Amino acid sequence: MRIAELSRRADVPVPTIKYYLREGLLSPGERTSYNQAQYTEEHVRRLRLVRALLEVGGLSVAATRDVLEKMDAPGMSLIDQAGKAQFAMTVSPKVVKDEAWQAAEEETQALIERLGWKVRQTNPARLTLASALATLHRLGKTDQVKLLEIYARAAREVAEAELGQLIQDSEPEAILETAVVWTALGDVVFSALRRFAHEDVAYGDAALD
Amino acid sequence: MRIAELSRRADVPVPTIKYYLREGLLSPGERTSYNQAQYTEEHVRRLRLVRALLEVGGLSVAATRDVLEKMDAPGMSLIDQAGKAQFAMTVSPKVVKDEAWQAAEEETQALIERLGWKVRQTNPARLTLASALATLHRLGKTDQVKLLEIYARAAREVAEAELGQLIQDSEPEAILETAVVWTALGDVVFSALRRFAHEDVAYGDAALD
Repeated sequence: MRIAELSRRADVPVPTIKYYLREGLLSPGERTSYNQAQYTEEHVRRLRLVRALLEVGGLSVAATRDVLEKMDAPGMSLIDQAGKAQFAMTVSPKVVKDEAWQAAEEETQALIERLGWKVRQTNPARLTLASALATLHRLGKTDQVKLLEIYARAAREVAEAELGQLIQDSEPEAILETAVVWTALGDVVFSALRRFAHEDVAYGDAALD
Repeated sequence: MRIAELSRRADVPVPTIKYYLREGLLSPGERTSYNQAQYTEEHVRRLRLVRALLEVGGLSVAATRDVLEKMDAPGMSLIDQAGKAQFAMTVSPKVVKDEAWQAAEEETQALIERLGWKVRQTNPARLTLASALATLHRLGKTDQVKLLEIYARAAREVAEAELGQLIQDSEPEAILETAVVWTALGDVVFSALRRFAHEDVAYGDAALD
């Protein structure tokens, strides 16, 4: 198909497609003349994925490119590819190595051991968690740390359901795409449902306007 | 205290404090001479909160100002204040009202009814959830919608624990601050733990490097 049809199919404007091509988020079509190229179903799917990562996942263009590269790396098992992509999607926070940070890092490690989970030292989410805990320490909000186990239990329930759902997708390519999309969207979905639950729990049986 | 001590106590550089003052994120100190002002413990606490919202919560300066204004509004119950602040902290996604959006909006409403939760029409998290679901529809990933109930159950467990923990804070001012901080940080903490759980569930008993 030509770029106009690709644009219509993926619901992405032509100038945006050209921008993605320049930024390396989309592989070039097959050139058929000096100013025309042909695109495939693969381009439609990739384009939708790029848009999802940028617009809903909230990733930067650079992070998106990184995720796509990790997804396309040859010779890796599917689970390793998905893991690499997920690591790339995890934005590392700026680390200030003060006392609060040290306490937070120890808490993170202690929690993982208490849960008995296998979490690589290289998992960037360790920094994400430690950074959030360090901020709680700096604000003197250490009571909230008691909630970690409850959070972990909820996260585990969600993760088990997600991986169960994921392996029902049969094509390897579809599994990776789903893993990437759902890693990004799952955070957003949980965040929204948590706010729904806050409202419902806070107001209980009171009438709402 | 003078601005230098405020800077030391809250661990925020003086030029950053001056920037927050200009942006209205921090109320001015009491002026004691033409180039000096006195700050209080209230300033220390507010400054730490501002930094937490900006650096860990990922809020913009405008969103942070909005949250602080909502928190300071007089004549509202504590729970309404916290609710207003939480609404302000929820970034509304750009809405494209296509077929996918319509399906997603109906799914959001149907889920809320199925759960029997009281969620206001004005809760901005409705748009957050519908936007994520619309993207799943556009990508043809509707199987993931089956996970919504499991997500909702997990979110509810977390929300109940959070509100229980929150009311143990005795001072009204501390409750609001904790609600705001934890709304922002809770998303980050859950996201990190979900990635830990993914790694643990995916690799099961296999040895890790």
